[in-house]
Amino acid sequence: MKRYETLAAEVAAAIAAGLFAPGQRLPSIRQASRDRGVSPSTVFEAYSRLEAQGLVEVRPRSGWYVTAVAPPRPPEPERRSAPDGEARPVTTGELVFSLLASTMRRDVVPLGSAFPDPALFPHARLAGELARAGRRLGADPRAAGDDLTPGSLALRRQIALRYAAAGARVDPEAIVVTNGALEALNLCIAAICRPGDTVIVESPCFYACLQVLARHGLHALEVATDPRTGVDLEALEVAILRHRPAAAWVMTDFQNPLGASMDAAKKQALVALASRHRLPLIEDAVYADLHDGPRPVSTKAFDGEGWVLHCGSFSKTLAPGWRVGWCAPGRFAREVAQQKLAASLATNVPAQLGIAAWLEHGSFERHLRRLRATLAEWRERYRQRVQAHFPAGTRIGRPGGGYFLWIELPEQVDVMALQRAAMARGISLSPGPMFSASAGFTHHLRMNCGYRPDARVAEAIAVLGDLAAL
Amino acid sequence: MKRYETLAAEVAAAIAAGLFAPGQRLPSIRQASRDRGVSPSTVFEAYSRLEAQGLVEVRPRSGWYVTAVAPPRPPEPERRSAPDGEARPVTTGELVFSLLASTMRRDVVPLGSAFPDPALFPHARLAGELARAGRRLGADPRAAGDDLTPGSLALRRQIALRYAAAGARVDPEAIVVTNGALEALNLCIAAICRPGDTVIVESPCFYACLQVLARHGLHALEVATDPRTGVDLEALEVAILRHRPAAAWVMTDFQNPLGASMDAAKKQALVALASRHRLPLIEDAVYADLHDGPRPVSTKAFDGEGWVLHCGSFSKTLAPGWRVGWCAPGRFAREVAQQKLAASLATNVPAQLGIAAWLEHGSFERHLRRLRATLAEWRERYRQRVQAHFPAGTRIGRPGGGYFLWIELPEQVDVMALQRAAMARGISLSPGPMFSASAGFTHHLRMNCGYRPDARVAEAIAVLGDLAAL
Repeated sequence: MKRYETLAAEVAAAIAAGLFAPGQRLPSIRQASRDRGVSPSTVFEAYSRLEAQGLVEVRPRSGWYVTAVAPPRPPEPERRSAPDGEARPVTTGELVFSLLASTMRRDVVPLGSAFPDPALFPHARLAGELARAGRRLGADPRAAGDDLTPGSLALRRQIALRYAAAGARVDPEAIVVTNGALEALNLCIAAICRPGDTVIVESPCFYACLQVLARHGLHALEVATDPRTGVDLEALEVAILRHRPAAAWVMTDFQNPLGASMDAAKKQALVALASRHRLPLIEDAVYADLHDGPRPVSTKAFDGEGWVLHCGSFSKTLAPGWRVGWCAPGRFAREVAQQKLAASLATNVPAQLGIAAWLEHGSFERHLRRLRATLAEWRERYRQRVQAHFPAGTRIGRPGGGYFLWIELPEQVDVMALQRAAMARGISLSPGPMFSASAGFTHHLRMNCGYRPDARVAEAIAVLGDLAAL
Repeated sequence: MKRYETLAAEVAAAIAAGLFAPGQRLPSIRQASRDRGVSPSTVFEAYSRLEAQGLVEVRPRSGWYVTAVAPPRPPEPERRSAPDGEARPVTTGELVFSLLASTMRRDVVPLGSAFPDPALFPHARLAGELARAGRRLGADPRAAGDDLTPGSLALRRQIALRYAAAGARVDPEAIVVTNGALEALNLCIAAICRPGDTVIVESPCFYACLQVLARHGLHALEVATDPRTGVDLEALEVAILRHRPAAAWVMTDFQNPLGASMDAAKKQALVALASRHRLPLIEDAVYADLHDGPRPVSTKAFDGEGWVLHCGSFSKTLAPGWRVGWCAPGRFAREVAQQKLAASLATNVPAQLGIAAWLEHGSFERHLRRLRATLAEWRERYRQRVQAHFPAGTRIGRPGGGYFLWIELPEQVDVMALQRAAMARGISLSPGPMFSASAGFTHHLRMNCGYRPDARVAEAIAVLGDLAAL
């Protein structure tokens, strides 16, 4: 991505987020050039691009302004889910397995995919890090042993530094490196829960969460969740008191599939609630680095008592397919490390060393800045396209980061039928029932906006809109 | 390793295996040079080395002969273990966890380690494969998606070719690539067993097997096992009839810790027995490629009905620390793939592609030939050293491959006390009770012979012998 494209994407995201209101004047070219440390011609290119997109307009002898008449935004999905309060075993495995297989096919438009476009990542330069890591192992073969469970200390130090930037103090020695966040979450569940236990989940929740509960013989208890602000804390406390769950599994930043995020005050209240009830809080934080605005504070910042088992990953932010994630398990560090040892012994050592080196060089934040701006811009373009083509009454989420849109279609739409019709046209989507142990969300879907919104994507969204209107 | 060293190691292994008897004449230098395709001077160097080791002697104008007076070999461990026939939950977790942590310390002589010397592997050249794999992903980023669960088809094809060489037809599409064999074994257990089920294990068995059963809430039922030929099939059938186990977990090649191996006829009988009882047979085959003699036939060669879930790895043979293994789950292919998806999604893609490329080049067999010869020679040198320094009455196993020796000390030795005393002297060892759910094998230990038998190792074995004699 060129520099002016990055800048244009950032300004577009700021407009989308309402940081610049319609009719508001943008910073002058000279001022923006100074503020951003880029050349005036870069700013000019960026503003021209936004003008071509209709987002800004030039007023001669005055400057650049946000286009006054912005299209009205569709409403967001309903304020809060209302699950039935029953804990139940999970039976969505086959559905999810077959849907996932379809999203991986290259000939399918990946609106149902869980991954961002692999073209967004610096594979070739990362390959150089892998080679250097391998050569270092050649020079000092016994070093490989140093980086087995719980993982490379160099990498764990870098992860701890990232926690520090998010306001949390985490001891590198207490971090366990894992095969992606998904293994981390499995290890947390295995460390804490026994078969038959109940685990609190969001409603809707990430389908992999349900799969993990299923493979450990656990019951899922869905609690009311707000599409903007996440789990309802009152409903959570009622569920804790009624069901004595073994753990709660949450995503507090850009929740999958809703895009919901908690602010710092709510995170603090959530951690306080968990600590008060001595409830392990398993957090899937894989989208936390993909924020449009300022970096969110981590729940770990409030976790003095260590009840938060915080799981992250580089799969969505740097190195897809490398399967390097981690867990900061708080008071459960030893149990999680033991689970790791028995589950898969260790994580690929060259990949750990390669990522550690990349983080040490400081190239990660630069890469992330570009990635965030791109995803924010793409998400906005998907949103506009959905708004233009989906039936009246459609509601679209407005997440502050990540690359998913949660879409609520008119009630009469059967999203499972829509999924089959779309698949027949070569378009994947993730229907609402994937995200619920009680098969709810029958007229909802999650749309991936992490692939370049090219003509094929635009056409696919239009086709989906037509199919949904039938 | 230089060419003459390889040859010397191979001849030493042949002598150790009894293929050349004491007093027998070795092939002439000219003949060996022709047979092996090496220069006469290489053969001369190799024979001279063996002479220096006292293994062969020169008779002027006649040739090279195996030294006539070989030291008598100590007896092997007792013929068969005799477990009590009770199924029980596994509680060895803490013991194993703390013992393993000690074997990983660089300042400790790793006689208790489970790994071969990392210096035996071609790290730097493998690093080149990683870099090429990463660059290919850069050129075609969506390719990364092709290699997620169940894994890279290029790699699965290479694995299927290796099965073909071991006499078995395995469909590449039915292979699941995993984070090492340990993950594969976990996935098999998760696919087949429910908490509270009983799983048949060998006596003694690999401690990780016990850890895996523990984390899945399963009971272990130990069955009688012969130190040379593995699980007793009659005892196995009795156990099946009495306990209705959910699965049996076996190693038929160079079993860890015994070194026991089944011949083809016994493997065939084992698979027939499992098929007759519809019993899933989970096989850990990570040492199968480390044979001194001809390549063993795989149990998969007899598995027409698909009851064998065969798990392998490149961690012991090519790329330690890369964590690339696989499972050929027979009739359970779909269940194991679903477990993989929910457990860790996928395996590091550059590592899969790098190993596939290495196997395609054909460098793997060349590397394996050298590795096998080295390990056989080292194992023999460890054995001689143990024989010279351990107390009278010590029995030592004679495996036909791998890099472990199973050692039975005189009955009065408390191997847990020996382990603590050895650790205080900077020597790790793996005491017998690690390998048993019933804390048996109190005067047994497993010795790793996979590290170069240098002066430090020689001294450590002598110290161990002294400690055991106290």
